[in-house]
Amino acid sequence: MKKVVSIVGSPAITSRTSILTRYVEKALREAGVDVETIYVRDLPPEDLLHVNFQSEPLKRTHSMVAAADGVIVASPVYKASYTGILKTYLDLLPQDGLRNKAVLPLMSGGTFGHLLAIDYGMKPVLNSLGARHILGGVYALDTQLEWQDKDAGTFRIAEEIKLRLDKATKDLMTAMKG
Amino acid sequence: MKKVVSIVGSPAITSRTSILTRYVEKALREAGVDVETIYVRDLPPEDLLHVNFQSEPLKRTHSMVAAADGVIVASPVYKASYTGILKTYLDLLPQDGLRNKAVLPLMSGGTFGHLLAIDYGMKPVLNSLGARHILGGVYALDTQLEWQDKDAGTFRIAEEIKLRLDKATKDLMTAMKG
Repeated sequence: MKKVVSIVGSPAITSRTSILTRYVEKALREAGVDVETIYVRDLPPEDLLHVNFQSEPLKRTHSMVAAADGVIVASPVYKASYTGILKTYLDLLPQDGLRNKAVLPLMSGGTFGHLLAIDYGMKPVLNSLGARHILGGVYALDTQLEWQDKDAGTFRIAEEIKLRLDKATKDLMTAMKG
Repeated sequence: MKKVVSIVGSPAITSRTSILTRYVEKALREAGVDVETIYVRDLPPEDLLHVNFQSEPLKRTHSMVAAADGVIVASPVYKASYTGILKTYLDLLPQDGLRNKAVLPLMSGGTFGHLLAIDYGMKPVLNSLGARHILGGVYALDTQLEWQDKDAGTFRIAEEIKLRLDKATKDLMTAMKG
């Protein structure tokens, strides 16, 4: 059974970014993939900021990433790039922490003008972690993602973005077979 | 009296990156500039990671930045880019937090191959904060920076880097006059 881990780098509990990961995770589970989610904001802030490699909660998530065939890396755009909270987590991964894994970047932002934050901001970091098969990624506008009922976990996604997420999910499945 | 604030985004208490800022800060003080330093690692981790805009310690540092004519932004290279801890701080600054300020980027890394982390990684973020006069910046190799006595705060810097830091200091002073 293939395994996918999502790393969600939003400081908000119910962020629009996590709408993207939830949608893809659901499709992956329906396709028989084992999916786990790491919400960086739920990890101990002190361990993240002071780069505590001995942190047990962090070590557990590192084992999850190490065991994964595919990794989804998701972030809202803050100051024209990925969030600091996401980067604190990526900084703690081993130097080759994404080697031999298919990686799908997902980002959401307020303006379409920040589309390149995936290619110019996030991908060089993923590349330095050893990732070689980095999928094209999906960028969504905040207006294309909407929570309906946060407690129930229901949301609406613009059709255009759904189509792109469906394609990205298929690409991720294909990349993991290779 | 001109004011400069350094933002140091290293998780380590006595990082090589802070050798760079200390050297420039000393030169600025000798030239009559009022200098203050923000070590992001000394701020409350939870406020940084959960983007708590109401945090009093953070608000105090934001006032320091707002009152500055020049800002030094310093980071070691982690995963081919600035650190997550630095970015958590920049994420919390107001959207135009660096407008009308001269900004000097300083980075240190293990390989000269990451020189472009200043131009491709850090500068777009500074730009999105409204900074327009961003100086060229100085990139130093870890081997060019050495602590002698951390308690006494003494260090050695390679001559080549000293010359570049001296020039950057002058450029910063000139930019602040304008």
